[in-house]
Amino acid sequence: MPTPPVQTVAWAPSGALRIVDQRRLPAELVMRDLASLEDVAEAIRTLAVRGAPAIGVAAAMGLAAAAAAELERGALADAARARLFIEAGAATLRGTRPTAVNLMWSLDRMLAALQQASGAPAALVAAMREEAERIRADDVAMCEALGRHGRTLLKDGMRVLTHCNAGALATAGMGTALAPLYVAKAEGLDIEVFADETRPLLQGARLTAWELSQAGIPVTLVTDGMAGSLMAAGKVDMVIVGADRIAANGDAANKIGTYSLAVLAKHHKIPFIVIAPSSTVDRAIPTGEMIPIEERAAEEITQVAGTRVAAEGARVFNPAFDVTPAALISHIVTEDGVLCAPYHFDRATLPLPPA
Amino acid sequence: MPTPPVQTVAWAPSGALRIVDQRRLPAELVMRDLASLEDVAEAIRTLAVRGAPAIGVAAAMGLAAAAAAELERGALADAARARLFIEAGAATLRGTRPTAVNLMWSLDRMLAALQQASGAPAALVAAMREEAERIRADDVAMCEALGRHGRTLLKDGMRVLTHCNAGALATAGMGTALAPLYVAKAEGLDIEVFADETRPLLQGARLTAWELSQAGIPVTLVTDGMAGSLMAAGKVDMVIVGADRIAANGDAANKIGTYSLAVLAKHHKIPFIVIAPSSTVDRAIPTGEMIPIEERAAEEITQVAGTRVAAEGARVFNPAFDVTPAALISHIVTEDGVLCAPYHFDRATLPLPPA
Repeated sequence: MPTPPVQTVAWAPSGALRIVDQRRLPAELVMRDLASLEDVAEAIRTLAVRGAPAIGVAAAMGLAAAAAAELERGALADAARARLFIEAGAATLRGTRPTAVNLMWSLDRMLAALQQASGAPAALVAAMREEAERIRADDVAMCEALGRHGRTLLKDGMRVLTHCNAGALATAGMGTALAPLYVAKAEGLDIEVFADETRPLLQGARLTAWELSQAGIPVTLVTDGMAGSLMAAGKVDMVIVGADRIAANGDAANKIGTYSLAVLAKHHKIPFIVIAPSSTVDRAIPTGEMIPIEERAAEEITQVAGTRVAAEGARVFNPAFDVTPAALISHIVTEDGVLCAPYHFDRATLPLPPA
Repeated sequence: MPTPPVQTVAWAPSGALRIVDQRRLPAELVMRDLASLEDVAEAIRTLAVRGAPAIGVAAAMGLAAAAAAELERGALADAARARLFIEAGAATLRGTRPTAVNLMWSLDRMLAALQQASGAPAALVAAMREEAERIRADDVAMCEALGRHGRTLLKDGMRVLTHCNAGALATAGMGTALAPLYVAKAEGLDIEVFADETRPLLQGARLTAWELSQAGIPVTLVTDGMAGSLMAAGKVDMVIVGADRIAANGDAANKIGTYSLAVLAKHHKIPFIVIAPSSTVDRAIPTGEMIPIEERAAEEITQVAGTRVAAEGARVFNPAFDVTPAALISHIVTEDGVLCAPYHFDRATLPLPPA
């Protein structure tokens, strides 16, 4: 398996949580070592670390690192105090991004491990470190499985269009939607990527273009409006995107703009692939119509890099996600393999999601 | 006919050319009076005045204004010197935007009027002013005809999606694609507009949102990637765009992103309307495949408002236009009326374009 182009969340030699500060990208690659609860919480809250899987891993590792630092400075006198610190820390981290499913799931795992553990404060802290490391390793393995399965859809010379950032910067491993590109690159395939800049927050221009360039994968940045004419010109062989939530019937919510790409891909008979861990599948939701869509601040559109670009007086509509119907999705790739339509995620036939 | 929300090019009381400096919009509405060739040329070159029709009118009026100023300060001693000044001035203005068809056509009209004119310098300068005023009035009348014909497609309560700016700010009158909205507003119809921000240069966010707001037409700004989900949600009844060049078969080149909208409109069974003066039709070009597409600087995408937003290392693809096949266009509206597919612009059956 290839090495990811960047270690978004990792252990520092000191035992602290080491993150890439994504607020500084693409201008600078700045690593920050975080060993206090306040620093970890602030990093998640301010999007220094982002991407659902990366947030979950960072919270677990950060909690373990903060407990270790607390132990080292002699602040955990007995097991009761250690348990209190860890439980309170988990509650603090939970509040940083209240809608992030992976964050809740990851902290639940940490608290379950705490319940299982026994002994002195040092033993409890060690148990936290072990569980956080398992969560990190599981994420890396999930990315590798997505990469391996998604790779089977790629052929040498393909030109792939992607949207937003579902790459190494969004996980502890090599990403979700971008993982197959890294696997293909390691196997010597020539794959070219078109990256939508992805307004309003420009994750494509800032993050996807950056991490693919780091990995030596040729990437061409385009505005979101160019996808159609690229396809009409025969320049796109496949569209690959991630997902934020997938309904039981395969309808997939992802970054705003994804649905337009799916319609355009269908019109041009180009395969449209969604790649996401099976924890993204919400089996309790039968169709995409029931997925709630967060509406975000108008300033994300009216301002760019702190400068107002839009006229006053206009209203702004800024949904963060849209829903692509399963009928427009050629394949959904999870760590279980490449799924073909019609999709039917069932509690009985597939492993239950961690939640 | 309604008054346009803004007089983009007009005569100042002094006889100078008065323009809205569009580099300052939407932050400020700044008018500039230009009475020298250098100032007029600089305004066109630096996009203080933009939009094909507006550029053509501004060049003609600017040339007349500069000649009048030259006469007033006693620099046109005889007819020969006056003719020389006007001819050299036209050559200078021609060089400011070498690919702007309307600019060439407008200056050709001025030089033809100069050839027809006779007498002293004052008579020549008066002839220039008269021809420039005819060019301005023709543009206003063209906008009104587009507005009147396009209005017949609108119904009370409609929600219209538009792209880029083909409004009053692009003409001497009330615009091309936006003209029917102003006519409908004056007749008391409630029309709501969604304006694509139109990356990379954000003409939708900066200009369309501004001029519609000025006119009291409710306008909601969206990013280019949102069009598909707006349509899927049933929020768009019609798409109306302008055109930069139309082939004889009706294929239409317009701002990048237009083609994606046309495909999305077709998928959602929403009428897709192109509104442009018949001078936009290039009858010498049989299909859109032969329309050359200008590629513009990467910095338009990698920077916003002077700040670098994109990662280094990525290539950039930045075509200024795309071509929408006639098959995706429900109607083409020119000053001659509402045309239905199949389109066949013929030298024999329609008035020849001015060129």
